[in-house]
Order: sequence, then C-alpha cells, then structure tokens
Amino acid sequence: MEVKDFFPVWNDLSPAEQQLLEGGAVRRTVEKGAVLHSGSLDCTGLLLVERGQLRACILSDEGREITLYRLLDRDICLFSASCMLRSIQFEVTIQAQRETTLWVLAPEPYQCVMEHSAPLANFTNEVMAGRFSDVMWLLEQILWKRFDQRLAAFLLEESALEGTSVLKITHEAIGSHMGNPREVVTRMLRYFQCEGLVRLSRGTVEIQNADGLKQLARI
Amino acid sequence: MEVKDFFPVWNDLSPAEQQLLEGGAVRRTVEKGAVLHSGSLDCTGLLLVERGQLRACILSDEGREITLYRLLDRDICLFSASCMLRSIQFEVTIQAQRETTLWVLAPEPYQCVMEHSAPLANFTNEVMAGRFSDVMWLLEQILWKRFDQRLAAFLLEESALEGTSVLKITHEAIGSHMGNPREVVTRMLRYFQCEGLVRLSRGTVEIQNADGLKQLARI
Repeated sequence: MEVKDFFPVWNDLSPAEQQLLEGGAVRRTVEKGAVLHSGSLDCTGLLLVERGQLRACILSDEGREITLYRLLDRDICLFSASCMLRSIQFEVTIQAQRETTLWVLAPEPYQCVMEHSAPLANFTNEVMAGRFSDVMWLLEQILWKRFDQRLAAFLLEESALEGTSVLKITHEAIGSHMGNPREVVTRMLRYFQCEGLVRLSRGTVEIQNADGLKQLARI
Repeated sequence: MEVKDFFPVWNDLSPAEQQLLEGGAVRRTVEKGAVLHSGSLDCTGLLLVERGQLRACILSDEGREITLYRLLDRDICLFSASCMLRSIQFEVTIQAQRETTLWVLAPEPYQCVMEHSAPLANFTNEVMAGRFSDVMWLLEQILWKRFDQRLAAFLLEESALEGTSVLKITHEAIGSHMGNPREVVTRMLRYFQCEGLVRLSRGTVEIQNADGLKQLARI
C-alpha cells in the first residue's frame, strides 16, 4: 500500500500537496510490543497501518491501563500527531499488538496541507469523529455494563481478531485492555470456566461455548 | 452577540459563505430544563450559547444518565448537528441547565460551507477535539478516581459555576450528572456531612469546608 491509498480524498489534493504528504512519509516495520508513541512527550506524526495491529491506550498514575480502541489494516492513527491539534489535551500511548508495517507521516507537512485543503481537513474530521465514537462506546460499556458482560464481549472480539478460539493471552494482558486489575479478571474467568464458557490453562483462554458468551454479552 | 462573534475564522470566509451561515441562524431563548436535542432522532443544528448553560449527557437503556460536559457562554455545541458527520455514531442529549439564549444554526448551510472552506473545517476540528478532551477527562475520572474524589470535584465545580456555596440541587440531579444512582450520592453526602465538609438540608447542599473538598479531590 502507498500513502495515497489511505486517503479517499487524494484526488482532491493538488500535485504539490500530494508531494508534500508523500515526501514526509517513512515506511517502518515494528515488532510486537513496540511502543510507537507515548503521551504528549513526542509528536510522532500520523500512523497509517498497512498490515498488523496497534492499540491506543491510556495509563493511570498508578500504572493501570485500558485500551481505547485498536487500529487494524488501513486504519489511520491521529492522536500520535496530537501536537497538530491545539485542543487535544489528553495523552494516548500507541503500542503494536503484533508485528506491524506502517507509514509514519511527519506532522508538519500534514498540518500545512490541512490548513489550506478543505477536503483533507474534512477527512481528518471524519477520522477523529470515528475515534470519538469508539471512545463513547467504551465509556458506555464501562458505565452501564457489568464486568462479566464486558469480559465476554472482549473474549469474542479477541477471538474474531485472531481468527481462533484458543487465545494466547495472560490475565494481566486482559486486565490492561479492560482497565481492571488482574485479580478481577482471574476471578471472573474462573467463574466462566465453572459455567463451561471457557477452558483455562497457563497463558491461554480457550472459548468453549461462544453462543453462551454472546448471550452474556448481549451481542 | 451575533453569529460571527462565535467564529474566530469569520474573516477567512467569503461574503457568500458568511451570508449562508447567518441566513440559516435563528436566535432562541429556552427555559431551564428544556431538552434541545435528543439522540439521533433529530438533527437540530449547531447551538451557539450566547448566555446560559447547557449540558450534554448520555442515557442508558435503563434510564440512568451522566453529564459529558457543560456548555457555557460563547461555547459551541457540535453534536446536536451530528448528522453532519457520518462517523459520529453515538447519541447525545442536550438540556438547558438554566434559562439560556442561543443561536441555532441549520446544519445544511454549515455543512455546505465547511465542505469548501478549510478555515471552517479546521475550526470545527478544534471544537470537536475540545469536546473529545472533555470526554477523555471524564473517562479517566471514572476509571481511576474513587467516587468520593469525583463527588468532591463535582461540588466544587458546581459551586464555581453558580457562584455560591449553597447549592440548590437534589441528590437525584447530582446522580444524573455523575452517572450514579441517587442512593450512592446520598450515602456519600451523609459521610461528607459527618466529616464537616458539607451541610445538608432539603434540596440544598451547603459547602462548609471547601479546602477539605479540594484536598479530597486533589485539585
């Protein structure tokens, strides 16, 4: 994939604008676990995911964390370039969930083009609105859903993303996605095991009854 | 205040664009408690608050609610025009917290100008980023803060907004702002009263020790 393939508005940009965006782009492949962006310390630039998976998360002062949303093939990560937007006042960490190939777009040329191009500004607006919707969904889950419902939904989502019912994931990692301590995750997974929904072994959670989980998650 | 006073980019718009925006604007005064926008049912348009106070909230299926943010004098409410942005997939309710005078801007002319004007698109982007930051702040509060800290911060904020230490507000209303059931609010307020932080009487919460509340909220 080339940079232009990420932008449906590419043909609405002038050749000079296109060149400015492409000129500031670097292609990279990062390992699973790599931290690509960390809070407001650095202004990494826009990340265009060609192949792989990133997660955007926030961290508490006490070291707890929660996944805001995941970025898959063809997704654009805006908040790694939050220096571009004066009104963004929160700190997001971006981490690779598996080996990921991506384009890094320098923030200055992007901002420069966006300032004069209504199509690019409106496209950026849509990307932000999409992420905003993800976060609102998460907020509603946390506010109104019980933890067992959220955990059931998480296991099903993870299974769909990985294409397997045998999830290689620790209770600690599930807690980091969901914003809960490990102990709480372990307790609920054991309850799920008693109910025949999953089978637990060291470092894996195997889904035994997907329909039961769906019913619980009300999907 | 006129429509143009809400837009720092007004002078970057053409006279035709300015006319389009002003032509679709209606000035209204609404009573305290009035619901101005309700979910995705209607596309009310942009709300420009001249004087007063609105709150944006979300509702659960079970009738619980939580305030996302408040809009004060000179603020712009974007999500009452969420039909403009395809990627917004959540439902916000907008309610007047006191008598409020505002401009309602029809969504079609706004969208039409934004499509071709980079300054207006970028300004809209900044407004959305500001609200996004408000919601991220709320999410962090809910995730990492204890309820007593959040309640202390709420009472101080309400006191600052109303300009008084005697808050005329019911426990039910506090619960609706904070996303908690009334009983939980009542229990914590009684604890605050025991600690000498507040004095309770029918329909009012009087702040007795603002410094104590600040310390608790870690402001």
